[in-house]
Amino acid sequence: MIILGIDPGLVCTGWGIVAKSGSRISHVANGQIRTDKEASMASRLLELDTTIARVIEIYKPDFGVVEEIFVNVNPQSTLKLGQARGAALLSLARAGLPVSEYPSKVVKKALVGTGGAAKEQVQHMLKVLLPGVKLAGADAADALAVAITHAHHVGAHL
Amino acid sequence: MIILGIDPGLVCTGWGIVAKSGSRISHVANGQIRTDKEASMASRLLELDTTIARVIEIYKPDFGVVEEIFVNVNPQSTLKLGQARGAALLSLARAGLPVSEYPSKVVKKALVGTGGAAKEQVQHMLKVLLPGVKLAGADAADALAVAITHAHHVGAHL
Repeated sequence: MIILGIDPGLVCTGWGIVAKSGSRISHVANGQIRTDKEASMASRLLELDTTIARVIEIYKPDFGVVEEIFVNVNPQSTLKLGQARGAALLSLARAGLPVSEYPSKVVKKALVGTGGAAKEQVQHMLKVLLPGVKLAGADAADALAVAITHAHHVGAHL
Repeated sequence: MIILGIDPGLVCTGWGIVAKSGSRISHVANGQIRTDKEASMASRLLELDTTIARVIEIYKPDFGVVEEIFVNVNPQSTLKLGQARGAALLSLARAGLPVSEYPSKVVKKALVGTGGAAKEQVQHMLKVLLPGVKLAGADAADALAVAITHAHHVGAHL
């Protein structure tokens, strides 16, 4: 089972792919998509969508997963984040993937064991869980973390 | 020249098509897309995208236009609106349409002559400018208004 996690953002969107075989979870790939700040909103969302579509074409995931987000204190930032998130969710849904969302606390709990864990702890656990993984950045790490969370949850139902 | 205006919203998205021939602007069609409140966010965005794609296929617009929005006081609402807006912008961009955005004040000014006009004045002017038009609702009216705004602005450059 292949799981694609996405951490959406207009400036930088992280993506991460993990494979689950039995109870074993392994790293497949991760990366970050940076959109052109000078481009129009529509072009930036298209750039995001095109890259996600390419990732889906290459790695053929069975599931798409996105972290549920806290809204930003700045309403304009929240709007931008919402737009990037809408584009990412649409990319996954268009590809026919079942899409799940997990709150940040659930992701942290799945990786570190506590919902209040710091970002550094999550990244540390990622390296433990996915030996040898090279993280493209903090957003790619968050994307892998949400993908692993889904792997745990799906496993619990099998 | 055919112009598609969109007023995005998660619960209800308005769309409106006008044709411009010389300085003459005429109504082509308008409608509203209501998504299933019980469905997941990804499904609702896909529903939105599918209908916009169908509208584009039928009416073959040359331009896509979306109103720039004020952010809502409620951050969760802003996030939802952002997601719907991101999906709508992506639908237009995926179809290869040049996408323009106009602030609300510019739309009101284009229709009523003043940036502070009330919604009712805008709807009244729509009926004057597009004789016989039947509005599918307030969101469809806003979509037609932004389409007309673009028709005026494009005209000014020709």
